[in-house]
Amino acid sequence: MTKRTPLAAAFHEAKYQVPGNGPRNVQVLKNVLEGLDGSLDSDHYGTGELIEQFQSEMAALVGKETAVFFPSGTMAQQIALRIWSDAKGSRKVAYHPLSHLEIHEQDGLKELHHLEPVLLGEADRLIRLDDVTGMGDDVACLLLELPQREIGGELPAYDELEAIAAYCRGKGIKLHLDGARLFEILPYYGKTAAEVCALFDSVYFSFYKGIGGIAGAILAGDESFTTSSKVWKRRHGGDLIALYPYFLSGRYYLEQRLPRMAAYYAQAVALAAMYNGCAGVKTKPAVPVSNMFHVHAALPAERLEAILIALYKETGIGLTSYLRATGESSCSFEVSVGDSLGRIPQAELARAFEWLAARLREEA
Amino acid sequence: MTKRTPLAAAFHEAKYQVPGNGPRNVQVLKNVLEGLDGSLDSDHYGTGELIEQFQSEMAALVGKETAVFFPSGTMAQQIALRIWSDAKGSRKVAYHPLSHLEIHEQDGLKELHHLEPVLLGEADRLIRLDDVTGMGDDVACLLLELPQREIGGELPAYDELEAIAAYCRGKGIKLHLDGARLFEILPYYGKTAAEVCALFDSVYFSFYKGIGGIAGAILAGDESFTTSSKVWKRRHGGDLIALYPYFLSGRYYLEQRLPRMAAYYAQAVALAAMYNGCAGVKTKPAVPVSNMFHVHAALPAERLEAILIALYKETGIGLTSYLRATGESSCSFEVSVGDSLGRIPQAELARAFEWLAARLREEA
Repeated sequence: MTKRTPLAAAFHEAKYQVPGNGPRNVQVLKNVLEGLDGSLDSDHYGTGELIEQFQSEMAALVGKETAVFFPSGTMAQQIALRIWSDAKGSRKVAYHPLSHLEIHEQDGLKELHHLEPVLLGEADRLIRLDDVTGMGDDVACLLLELPQREIGGELPAYDELEAIAAYCRGKGIKLHLDGARLFEILPYYGKTAAEVCALFDSVYFSFYKGIGGIAGAILAGDESFTTSSKVWKRRHGGDLIALYPYFLSGRYYLEQRLPRMAAYYAQAVALAAMYNGCAGVKTKPAVPVSNMFHVHAALPAERLEAILIALYKETGIGLTSYLRATGESSCSFEVSVGDSLGRIPQAELARAFEWLAARLREEA
Repeated sequence: MTKRTPLAAAFHEAKYQVPGNGPRNVQVLKNVLEGLDGSLDSDHYGTGELIEQFQSEMAALVGKETAVFFPSGTMAQQIALRIWSDAKGSRKVAYHPLSHLEIHEQDGLKELHHLEPVLLGEADRLIRLDDVTGMGDDVACLLLELPQREIGGELPAYDELEAIAAYCRGKGIKLHLDGARLFEILPYYGKTAAEVCALFDSVYFSFYKGIGGIAGAILAGDESFTTSSKVWKRRHGGDLIALYPYFLSGRYYLEQRLPRMAAYYAQAVALAAMYNGCAGVKTKPAVPVSNMFHVHAALPAERLEAILIALYKETGIGLTSYLRATGESSCSFEVSVGDSLGRIPQAELARAFEWLAARLREEA
């Protein structure tokens, strides 16, 4: 059986957890069902009032003609790229070197769809307009991930995004949004989801990042695109007889948390400032542009782990459940702000960071 | 929005429904969750105590070393055939002309995995030993579906099954069980699931046929097989962050309904006899060998539809929600016996069939 590391155990035993929306447990689903009428008919292989109504609402939310619910973003995005590839008759698709498709999907895009990714820009920075204008017109589709998660959740300036979209449109290159965290970026841009999505030909967003649902994703675009996506969904084995446990949870937590995205963003900015006040610690981005950021520490993972376990026991506040070694004497972790942070009394949080800052001064 | 046909509407409005386990609605999930502790941790991308424990139980149930939970059988079976194909270095896989892979999956096996199916035997009958011995040794895997659903749920004699398995083993051809309805055939064969599965190198079974769960499937085999299957599950987009709504329901209904499979089978035999007592109506098989059979009527679908709607209104008993035209003056439908049939008072069911038999005599 999979076991928790000592750091994860200490994190979960702490009275408060800083990141996330609370434990991912069965209660998350129970909350959704308690308010629902048992006589509601299941969806049936993608049809039925419940799923069709939901998909219409989601299409309207992102300003697209149609939307299809998928069990996962992995499935939805491979399919989006495949459709645009087939439409242009080119296997080339472009994305960031640290795109989810490149590093987290066991090469499904290549193994199942035989697409040929063009890795655009460099691993430690965003894709820029000059990367795009230099990539060649034979690319069928450019995928942009907003925010770029693996570099801490960075965002391009909105006018650069508009310039990239205009360039692609002019060249007949489709633009696809990896919007796993689409709603999390709207407060920074000061735009609606539909405004951002209008720059893209197709859009994916997830229900279990900031929204905190159980699983599932939306793929949206025009009608011929989503019609094709349903054929590929069946081929992938994603056209389940019933998907309602996921999309009903998605709707429930979307309604709850969309209005809170601005607060998560503001709290992330304040939290990052607390981290940056500690010796040897830097956040990336220095000032977050969404509810997420990465924390980089100039300490070996084992040293920081011992400090964190002591911190959690001393203050009752858990900062992270894991550390990733990034070198012999450096490590990092990701923070996403959700409901949990707001539940911690300010004074207790401040005390925890004072404790941490003092302890890290001793290390320095 | 998708709308019910008049026949489906009359079926659902009837006091009793003959096939199935009751309505597929949100209550099916509510039943499962009512007895569960909300603090149970979600699974996490295929790991965690809840899913690992469940998979161990399912492996034991079918007598295999390991088992992996999949969101769908479509995904699980394509992956099984791909693994055996790669292992042998041959793209050829053999199955029945009406296999689910051939007619219900939008050619996912060909489009995603580029496998080359050998359609074995003929559409209207089972695969026989002589089909297998004649198919050529370069086939990587033979898939057998037990029971063969599209021809009404027929089964080979058990000794023929053993002979096919022995032949394949001798020739280095892997044998995969499409056991969508595995538990439904055990009473007829008088075998345990592990005994039947011992004939096969890999096994799939479903949680939403006779078991009546929400969705999901098990793929079982030896450890190297299931380890590969997890890589492909990720590639397909099926390695969801959480699958517990499905496998917890699967376990709940499995516990409830495994002990009832013998009763469903006996009831199916009795029900088929009632259909066969009506003029112009024949079931396939004539005597069921599982909980399912097909009903074929020598009447145009529109004529039978009108008769059935009248029957449902007159007697309060719904026989089927749909009809499939099989010719200008013939049609058919599938019947699977579950919990619903046992809830109907015998006298009311008998009266409904008397009404139907009388009405069909007038038509003849």
